[in-house]
Amino acid sequence: MSSRRLSLALRRARLPSARPAARPIVSIPSPTSSTTSSISARPFTASSTVAADSTRQIKYTSDAYPNIKRNPNFAQVTAEDVRFFQELLGAPSAVVDGVTSDNAADDIEPFNSDWMRKYRGHTRLVLKPKDKDEISAVLRYCNEKKLAVVPQGGNTGLVGGSVPVFDEIVINTSRMNQIRSFDEASGVLVADAGVILEVADQYLAEREHLFPLDLGAKGSCHLGGNVATNAGGLRLLRYGSLHGSVLGVEAVLADGTVVDALSTLRKNNTGYDLKQLFIGAEGTLGIITGVAVQCPPRPKAVNVAYFGLESYDQVRAAFREAKGQLSEILSAFELMDGRSQRLVHESTGNKYPLEGEYPFYCLVETSGSNGEHDLAKLEAFLEHILGEGIVADGVLAQDETQFQAIWRWREGITEALSHLGGTYKYDVSIPLTDLYQLVDDTRDRLTSLGLVGEDDSYPVRAVVGYGHMGDSNLHLNVAVRQYSKEVEKAIEPWVYEWIAQRNGSISAEHGLGVAKKEFIGYSQNETNLKLMKQLKALYDPNGIMNPYKYI
Amino acid sequence: MSSRRLSLALRRARLPSARPAARPIVSIPSPTSSTTSSISARPFTASSTVAADSTRQIKYTSDAYPNIKRNPNFAQVTAEDVRFFQELLGAPSAVVDGVTSDNAADDIEPFNSDWMRKYRGHTRLVLKPKDKDEISAVLRYCNEKKLAVVPQGGNTGLVGGSVPVFDEIVINTSRMNQIRSFDEASGVLVADAGVILEVADQYLAEREHLFPLDLGAKGSCHLGGNVATNAGGLRLLRYGSLHGSVLGVEAVLADGTVVDALSTLRKNNTGYDLKQLFIGAEGTLGIITGVAVQCPPRPKAVNVAYFGLESYDQVRAAFREAKGQLSEILSAFELMDGRSQRLVHESTGNKYPLEGEYPFYCLVETSGSNGEHDLAKLEAFLEHILGEGIVADGVLAQDETQFQAIWRWREGITEALSHLGGTYKYDVSIPLTDLYQLVDDTRDRLTSLGLVGEDDSYPVRAVVGYGHMGDSNLHLNVAVRQYSKEVEKAIEPWVYEWIAQRNGSISAEHGLGVAKKEFIGYSQNETNLKLMKQLKALYDPNGIMNPYKYI
Repeated sequence: MSSRRLSLALRRARLPSARPAARPIVSIPSPTSSTTSSISARPFTASSTVAADSTRQIKYTSDAYPNIKRNPNFAQVTAEDVRFFQELLGAPSAVVDGVTSDNAADDIEPFNSDWMRKYRGHTRLVLKPKDKDEISAVLRYCNEKKLAVVPQGGNTGLVGGSVPVFDEIVINTSRMNQIRSFDEASGVLVADAGVILEVADQYLAEREHLFPLDLGAKGSCHLGGNVATNAGGLRLLRYGSLHGSVLGVEAVLADGTVVDALSTLRKNNTGYDLKQLFIGAEGTLGIITGVAVQCPPRPKAVNVAYFGLESYDQVRAAFREAKGQLSEILSAFELMDGRSQRLVHESTGNKYPLEGEYPFYCLVETSGSNGEHDLAKLEAFLEHILGEGIVADGVLAQDETQFQAIWRWREGITEALSHLGGTYKYDVSIPLTDLYQLVDDTRDRLTSLGLVGEDDSYPVRAVVGYGHMGDSNLHLNVAVRQYSKEVEKAIEPWVYEWIAQRNGSISAEHGLGVAKKEFIGYSQNETNLKLMKQLKALYDPNGIMNPYKYI
Repeated sequence: MSSRRLSLALRRARLPSARPAARPIVSIPSPTSSTTSSISARPFTASSTVAADSTRQIKYTSDAYPNIKRNPNFAQVTAEDVRFFQELLGAPSAVVDGVTSDNAADDIEPFNSDWMRKYRGHTRLVLKPKDKDEISAVLRYCNEKKLAVVPQGGNTGLVGGSVPVFDEIVINTSRMNQIRSFDEASGVLVADAGVILEVADQYLAEREHLFPLDLGAKGSCHLGGNVATNAGGLRLLRYGSLHGSVLGVEAVLADGTVVDALSTLRKNNTGYDLKQLFIGAEGTLGIITGVAVQCPPRPKAVNVAYFGLESYDQVRAAFREAKGQLSEILSAFELMDGRSQRLVHESTGNKYPLEGEYPFYCLVETSGSNGEHDLAKLEAFLEHILGEGIVADGVLAQDETQFQAIWRWREGITEALSHLGGTYKYDVSIPLTDLYQLVDDTRDRLTSLGLVGEDDSYPVRAVVGYGHMGDSNLHLNVAVRQYSKEVEKAIEPWVYEWIAQRNGSISAEHGLGVAKKEFIGYSQNETNLKLMKQLKALYDPNGIMNPYKYI
């Protein structure tokens, strides 16, 4: 095989010199920028998606989940409470008051509902403290008065964790948006919880470093929310989990106690690693107000290739080869099934990257410090997998535009699905052998139940699968014309039983929130649940932190 | 500069083809294998070191730390207790009984004292359960009877954490030594807590994978102990901390509850990450009985270089260049001062790797998937740092023997120090700017106090510094002719104040144990300590797990 030996620089990184081109196999078309449906570089933002569908009414979570009852121990917010918060926080923009004002409903709505338009709460009060001391004073007051709260960052979660169910007060971190420090020698970034992930990454790009997390929602999500949900994302394969890369956390407990565990040291074995408790706790133990993160040097060369494959077995074979041959430069190995790519094609109107259509596609990204070396490795890998017939066809991005365009075939799936109506999203971890089987089995099941079809008489439009192959992490998505109990009951708990039988996880990276709370028993045993409830009771005895969710 | 372009394979990994040699700068002598003092490939083992000094009497910890009093709430072990354990565990080798037998003193002594010969307890009972169920039954009994216990793995710790202070029962994991499973597709190893690190790594080497932790004690230390102490070691720079690479932990709490958090999934966001509690808890919350670890592919090519430098500023400059130029293949950057290398020279009789002597030395290791690429990067790095005058002289290992020989100049320091008498070891994390200053300041202080000298009238022989530059982790070692309160008081708490002023950690990777327990306040604030004590009380209300230590 000969492929075009072309290299690509990631955003502000240095461009390695291009090498003479050999015979190209196929080149990828540039995105059709004249089309109105063409999507932006980072298409996923909460606001744009919500705006696109804002005519559709969102059902209240309390209606969708009638089993969840408001905890009568919680007080209701009074005008007196509002006055206290207004005095405490000072700035008029820090309090969005729907308690004493009837005109705030529109202002409050974005904080009550999620970007998927699946969860909707009844809050009438949103607070935006500016620092940990204000959060501490807010929580101390709420804990004393038994006022329940929901910590909220960019509100880009997928399980309803960041919006209220009833009248919980929203504590939004958007005003805590300062980068506190960056040490170029150690690569340690210290930042407020409300810094947007993409802002942090751009700040780091200017300093030749990289945030060790990347995900579709990066334009909206907050670092505090990323850490609170233990976000995984596109490059966990390379940079590891936040449990490893977060060096320190500053958080406020329910009673207002400020926990300063904001160590910037890579090694610090002085007692229990308290910060770990807050990573992935989804705001049920405290509110994260600051984070210290170990950031790697920004790769000087980034390449991306896109393949069509005839079977899932070949996807597994390609991954095995990528791990072996690309090894330390492999930064992403993403799987997309044919249906997911057809949805992107239909949604964007963009021409497919490859000539034919295939049941499976993979996106392989490399990141390294030497463009020539990386291309040589990637070329050897391509030669091998094409020569062995593991992949049927492939394309290598030849410039930044094509790099972005290829990534949109992966990152655009969420957006494409959002145009279809609703989506039941299952974010699961399953051993690689069985990973894709879940998609086929789900499609077969829903089809045999007569739920899948082309016209509006069928509730289900499509069953698609994609995800982070490198992390054994599948996103099973069931696109529906509208959310319905009939479809939900056909999938749940069947899907969780399927996963539990294979020792998988019912939530690989999205977390529990409202959506998975009742199903946690499929991934955690009784003892573990008891221990978790002990921890919750220890740190939040009144249960005011993000109630009705998680465990 | 021209350096010999020679490549090296790590143990069983594949050897990349050698490239034509350019002009060598200097070659390193082979180790003088005829010398009796020449050290073995992995010199550090608990038994050999203790044997070498077994004529010297070890002071009881209870005498060295008279402030520590035996907790009168704990019961004393009776003959009835011994009978219970003998019946429970069955195998005669599972119980070393010094309670009802007077002849067991010699058998028990190795479990009572540490390899540094600094800590010594009074236990008269050692138990070696074979699995988690036996440990559960042992702990349930001990908790009911209020019998204190010490979990013990390979007993290679450096802070007295793995030996008793008074008559705590030793629960040793050496009989739990099975590798349970390894999945080549995901790289996940599941193993008993008592598997020796080197055994695990050799098992993985045969399957082209690597254990993501390496340290001098690998020939003796147990995986359970590694996780319990959150061991850092030589390649944390590359493979990250155990908080990231350990996917699951199986542990037994004080009351006998078996916590099965032995997930093998890379991503699993279903509730609080309970396993994190046990990582670095030094056996104070429970006993780890099994671990699941994410293991990377074994690098196909490993190279090591060794440099002499004229100043610490140059060491920092060399590290900065290594991070930038070697990036994803950099697997170790170790610092050794001139004094530490002289000790190794005197101890082993080996010829120095370089012609001249220098105040500082660095060891740089690369690990990658392509030997030619790695050498090209390393060569460019060498050319740069020699050309810029950052390093004064250097050598590149040319084969496996030289690879091992160079590493011995780093790993042999601990052994060399152990021949001198006692060593006050401080394992600290300090921002890179000030890292080595602590060694100079300590030497100046002890010299001005008249404590340092060549002959036996001075208590201190040498003050040396070395460590993991890549992790901002310094090992400050004060070699003494014998342990004395005079020296200890001259160093402590002065050294901890020095570190606290720079926001460092008083224990980067060695942990707290007995040695650092009383100084934790220099690295943790009151709130954090209160939270830690809450956790301890939650999981071990009777305080039987590894008492008198940690917090």
